[in-house]
Amino acid sequence: MKLRDIARNRVSAREFSREEIDLGNVLYAIDVARHAPSGANQQPWRFIIVTDPKTKKKIRARCEEAEKRFHENPPENIRRFLLEKGITWRKPFLTDAYALILVFGRKTAPYWIQSVWLSIGYLILALEEVGLASLTYTPSDTSWVHEELGVPEEYVLQTIIPVGKPKHAASVKERIPLLDIIFCGRWGSPCVGLGPQNSGGE
Amino acid sequence: MKLRDIARNRVSAREFSREEIDLGNVLYAIDVARHAPSGANQQPWRFIIVTDPKTKKKIRARCEEAEKRFHENPPENIRRFLLEKGITWRKPFLTDAYALILVFGRKTAPYWIQSVWLSIGYLILALEEVGLASLTYTPSDTSWVHEELGVPEEYVLQTIIPVGKPKHAASVKERIPLLDIIFCGRWGSPCVGLGPQNSGGE
Repeated sequence: MKLRDIARNRVSAREFSREEIDLGNVLYAIDVARHAPSGANQQPWRFIIVTDPKTKKKIRARCEEAEKRFHENPPENIRRFLLEKGITWRKPFLTDAYALILVFGRKTAPYWIQSVWLSIGYLILALEEVGLASLTYTPSDTSWVHEELGVPEEYVLQTIIPVGKPKHAASVKERIPLLDIIFCGRWGSPCVGLGPQNSGGE
Repeated sequence: MKLRDIARNRVSAREFSREEIDLGNVLYAIDVARHAPSGANQQPWRFIIVTDPKTKKKIRARCEEAEKRFHENPPENIRRFLLEKGITWRKPFLTDAYALILVFGRKTAPYWIQSVWLSIGYLILALEEVGLASLTYTPSDTSWVHEELGVPEEYVLQTIIPVGKPKHAASVKERIPLLDIIFCGRWGSPCVGLGPQNSGGE
């Protein structure tokens, strides 16, 4: 399959069925992710795969605790999005999804945030390729991982990716049309006649 | 082609031939990138494609100016890498590569750095898919883009990606073995027998 089809088909899932998945596929996706480039080739990413229901429950509790505080007064630039999507402090996907991938970055590496998130791009495309739904959930508080999961202080939790089978079929994906986000030569200067792959927006 | 092959084959190119490339393929890669997820679906990425030699020369001059200062006293965590790779303040790829993709992030969007770099992961995989070499070069100073390229203050240059045909065949890629970067359940706990896709390191 072409990468564009994989990227187009992938929609963030917020509800998961509890169906079992092949963890070999999760490993495959992380194998793809580790081939990403990184600042000074430090490969500052680490991954914890969690499938044990007890641990998932603990993780969910820690996240929801922080989410409750966050949702009392969310930042202005995100408030409407939360409302429209019906997103509350409740994170059932953290226990419903068969597996969680916790992605960590080593905060002493150069460009570590950039490198880790670039590799997350690789990761979620690969999950889609093998037919697994995912969400890049960013917890409001991440300090509990050291005590709860034995993570060294040097590593920071960047995202928790629930992985599994989605409860519903994918919803429509809203994107700004292609030619509205690209300029040629200078800001504001449109790209005219740039070849047949120019497919416009959705 | 499987995503893992694309990811494995891709090696950051530091030397480019001046050969012309099909800009339709560059557009294709950005089309892939814009399907990445983003914080509150703000899609905070914007792209400027530069092929004009004069503009590339100007960009190179601005970058090298800052690089000279940076290389006088590079951070400890990157010094050895620069030495080993023979990386100096000179950035000939900024004029040699047929096209530059400048990637910007809107700094008022939630999780804008994370979102933009995730989409850069999509972007460079797609460039590899269509046979184009790339490098995610992060300039030491990015403030000149506002004056030089008319970029609004709200947008920050995140990377300049030279795109084109590489001068040399790809070199070997060094990666930490797969099972050294994954744990199961908790930090330090190895993932044993996780299915056939477990291919070990390189």
